[in-house]
Amino acid sequence: MRYSVFAGGKRLRPALCIASYRAFRDDWQRVLSVAASFELIHTYSLIHDDLPSMDNDDFRRGIPSCHLKFGEAVAILAGDALLTLAFESVSRCLEFPPERILRASVILATAAGASDGMIAGQILDLEAEGVSISSNDLEAIHRSKTGAMLEASIKTGAYLAGVGEDEMGPIGVYGRNIGLAFQIVDDILDETAPGDALGKTPGKDRAQRKATYPALHGIDASRRIVGRLTAEARDSARELGSRAGLLSGIADYLESRSN
Amino acid sequence: MRYSVFAGGKRLRPALCIASYRAFRDDWQRVLSVAASFELIHTYSLIHDDLPSMDNDDFRRGIPSCHLKFGEAVAILAGDALLTLAFESVSRCLEFPPERILRASVILATAAGASDGMIAGQILDLEAEGVSISSNDLEAIHRSKTGAMLEASIKTGAYLAGVGEDEMGPIGVYGRNIGLAFQIVDDILDETAPGDALGKTPGKDRAQRKATYPALHGIDASRRIVGRLTAEARDSARELGSRAGLLSGIADYLESRSN
Repeated sequence: MRYSVFAGGKRLRPALCIASYRAFRDDWQRVLSVAASFELIHTYSLIHDDLPSMDNDDFRRGIPSCHLKFGEAVAILAGDALLTLAFESVSRCLEFPPERILRASVILATAAGASDGMIAGQILDLEAEGVSISSNDLEAIHRSKTGAMLEASIKTGAYLAGVGEDEMGPIGVYGRNIGLAFQIVDDILDETAPGDALGKTPGKDRAQRKATYPALHGIDASRRIVGRLTAEARDSARELGSRAGLLSGIADYLESRSN
Repeated sequence: MRYSVFAGGKRLRPALCIASYRAFRDDWQRVLSVAASFELIHTYSLIHDDLPSMDNDDFRRGIPSCHLKFGEAVAILAGDALLTLAFESVSRCLEFPPERILRASVILATAAGASDGMIAGQILDLEAEGVSISSNDLEAIHRSKTGAMLEASIKTGAYLAGVGEDEMGPIGVYGRNIGLAFQIVDDILDETAPGDALGKTPGKDRAQRKATYPALHGIDASRRIVGRLTAEARDSARELGSRAGLLSGIADYLESRSN
């Protein structure tokens, strides 16, 4: 568990959760344990994704993947334990009223789950390997596989800061755009970045005939889509006023990131 | 997810949760969704346990195990999704005050987790394969691997019925004894029961040189330990009065079960 969590990584989900909370309130430390739970769930999903029967990847965050280091059985259990710990951590949070924490737990579980969250996306992704799919299907896969957790981290930050779940407004637009843009950049980097920058094996999507934006639209068109999505995200952040500077900064970073 | 959850099984954990609640209150329907979460977590653990890199079992609950039916990748994801759904289901429960639900979620997560819950037990179990261990070590493995979830299902039922977590009294004694007795009976049945009664491959513990009660104490002594534990459990149930009849019945069933 520690090996994989503390191997580095961008900490994008907790950063988004905190940045989103900070767009409305100053006391961002209160949201730390919930924000961390998004990273625990992200890390569990990487450990399980890398398993031989899944994506079979030997490297992650620049070091041997969990199963290569500790064996498959321990890697499966480490992932299970991180997922369990994420919900324990949320449930132990005393910083917000219990009913808000329960709702945050539901948002997290839904984003990570099999209805239309991360696991739904992984199943769709498995089913789409080697099959030709439409750009709508691809967007649906990306929205659930990666977008759901990114969006939920942003939504949860705002929700715990007091924004109504059904009144997300600009922060909702920001979340949807960033979620999709991030995954498209991931697809582009898998094709274009060297493995030592990526921290994982590059070119795997193409080798496994995965459905990706570059495969469907080409690299240049994919970059233009990212540009449009992040520009809209920055506009939404601007609407939120001066507190939302961190959100704009993350949009800039996502557009230009190289790993 | 449905294939493995609805393959049958004894539903012991939800039954214990409901029986424990009923020892104090009549309106047991209120505890159903939390009780069901214990079964979801139990089922996920069976799916992952049966994987080739874990216990490598082809049959479970009398039918092909999840990975044999759907492949390893889907089985891993189905397990992950059931674990996620368990916490979603608890978090969505509206039958009790939010702070009680949050605490129930912590009890569940702790019992399923890596500190001294189910996953801790599975790691200890992996480490004990082929190694000679003391009867104290074996009891510690059993208490965490299976006992923690059984105890937690009983504790959660009582807690949601209004019993203080630190004032469990007779229901606490019942939980500890039943948790351990159940696993010892499991060990005995693995040695003695035919596979078609068991619904899974028998004799695997011995083949994998697992630490078990029969291996350490012999079959007869193991049966005597079960008799002593369940007798104490029945005494504790009796102390709880006439509402606790279901708890006594479950103790009787556990002692005499053949699968």
